Amino acid sequence: MSGFGEATRAVRVGEGVYDVCLDDGYSIGGPLNGGYLMAVLLRAAVDDSPHEHPVSTSAQFLRTGRPGPARVRVEQVKTGKTTTISRASLVSDDGPLLETLVTTATLDPLAEPLYTSAPAHAMPPPEECLPLPEPRPESNMNLNGQMELLFDPPTVGWLNGAPTGRPESRAYFRLRHGQEPDPFVLALAVDALPPVVFSAGLRGWAPTVELTWHLRALPAPGWLTVLASGRMVGDGWFDEDAEVWDSAGRLVAQSRQLARVGRG
Amino acid sequence: MSGFGEATRAVRVGEGVYDVCLDDGYSIGGPLNGGYLMAVLLRAAVDDSPHEHPVSTSAQFLRTGRPGPARVRVEQVKTGKTTTISRASLVSDDGPLLETLVTTATLDPLAEPLYTSAPAHAMPPPEECLPLPEPRPESNMNLNGQMELLFDPPTVGWLNGAPTGRPESRAYFRLRHGQEPDPFVLALAVDALPPVVFSAGLRGWAPTVELTWHLRALPAPGWLTVLASGRMVGDGWFDEDAEVWDSAGRLVAQSRQLARVGRG
Repeated sequence: MSGFGEATRAVRVGEGVYDVCLDDGYSIGGPLNGGYLMAVLLRAAVDDSPHEHPVSTSAQFLRTGRPGPARVRVEQVKTGKTTTISRASLVSDDGPLLETLVTTATLDPLAEPLYTSAPAHAMPPPEECLPLPEPRPESNMNLNGQMELLFDPPTVGWLNGAPTGRPESRAYFRLRHGQEPDPFVLALAVDALPPVVFSAGLRGWAPTVELTWHLRALPAPGWLTVLASGRMVGDGWFDEDAEVWDSAGRLVAQSRQLARVGRG
Repeated sequence: MSGFGEATRAVRVGEGVYDVCLDDGYSIGGPLNGGYLMAVLLRAAVDDSPHEHPVSTSAQFLRTGRPGPARVRVEQVKTGKTTTISRASLVSDDGPLLETLVTTATLDPLAEPLYTSAPAHAMPPPEECLPLPEPRPESNMNLNGQMELLFDPPTVGWLNGAPTGRPESRAYFRLRHGQEPDPFVLALAVDALPPVVFSAGLRGWAPTVELTWHLRALPAPGWLTVLASGRMVGDGWFDEDAEVWDSAGRLVAQSRQLARVGRG
């Protein structure tokens, strides 16, 4: 099992109860990445379901997660031939971290879309894109070690004091260590980029309050393209919409989160 | 109390338990509109919260609702100075209809956005837009009697055998009987238009599986503008994204639903 597979492993220990171990490798200056927490929870929710794929996930983020043992509790609300709807929560010793509603279903890997729109934005080729600067070791940006991100240059202009003035973030994404994309990797990908508000000139911790994402197709191997943008920043809140395309040009995931504007 | 206020009334009968009466006026050929069901549930969730507004709602639709008595159960998962996160479910004699996660907070009616994008589409003026044809009385499209919708003409071309070929639906929206928009009306508005897939050439009942919507600002009186579109239709699923703008030009709501393609 790969690093990511191991780091998201959920061991069934009872009826709808799973032991997990939250991995320090997915932390960002202390707290764990929210997408990683979703991936862990979804491993349990899918295992508990008769269906194979986490088609829709709505997550409320209750508190920041820290590395260490935790537990996922899954309760099926309704199950049928096409879908199973479950409530799932991720709980650590600090209390509940994530409260979710998850719909599982089984997607057809060969399905061809009846209609698909173009990506929200054209990306330059990877060789014209930029990695983030190497973080200082003492900043404990461990998540950066797990993934490769290559950014559309204007969307990381904020690093050099030149934000675009719009909430946006666009990058090629892949996990290191040869882990190819799957639905659990997509849960990480939809929340892996710096908050879109950095590009609008804001800084600081931007905690997610709610994130809903939909798995639209099973991703092909290779780079993912993550296109994120926001529609409004105000009254302490912002939205962040991400669409994820795979290397075969398929829309594989859509997410939207509502988050708080950082104060830092 | 107005018709809509009365039809969404939730009476507290115990700790987090509310009696409601689902109103036949919001049915469409039998089943009740999903947005109406959310509005009823949110009346209870907001009443139960120390905060005033339903800022984020994620709803899983378990079965179709029918008119008659039902119950909302609200359980606070976490409450704090800024937000309260609750689980809320709407349950009828047939079983659970809606399972939701709701974040309540108190928005500032005077907040000015730091950033806001333009609407996704420019609408022609209302006088160039089209109402839906009067439904046949025996079709029991009762919902149509509650609201006025004026459509951007191409997006109702499917009525005359000329769909645009893209999943889209755009209309001005207001309730009849003088009810001005509020957050509960917005819950109805985000799910009030015909499914976007009609415009892509598909027909039939298109049941919502999951719908998440965010209240972004408190709406001004007058017409709302609802701009809905989808990114992909395939493998039996489609997404529908709606943004709602108020008469003052403010983005007041954003929603996305994942739904099943109808077979009819």
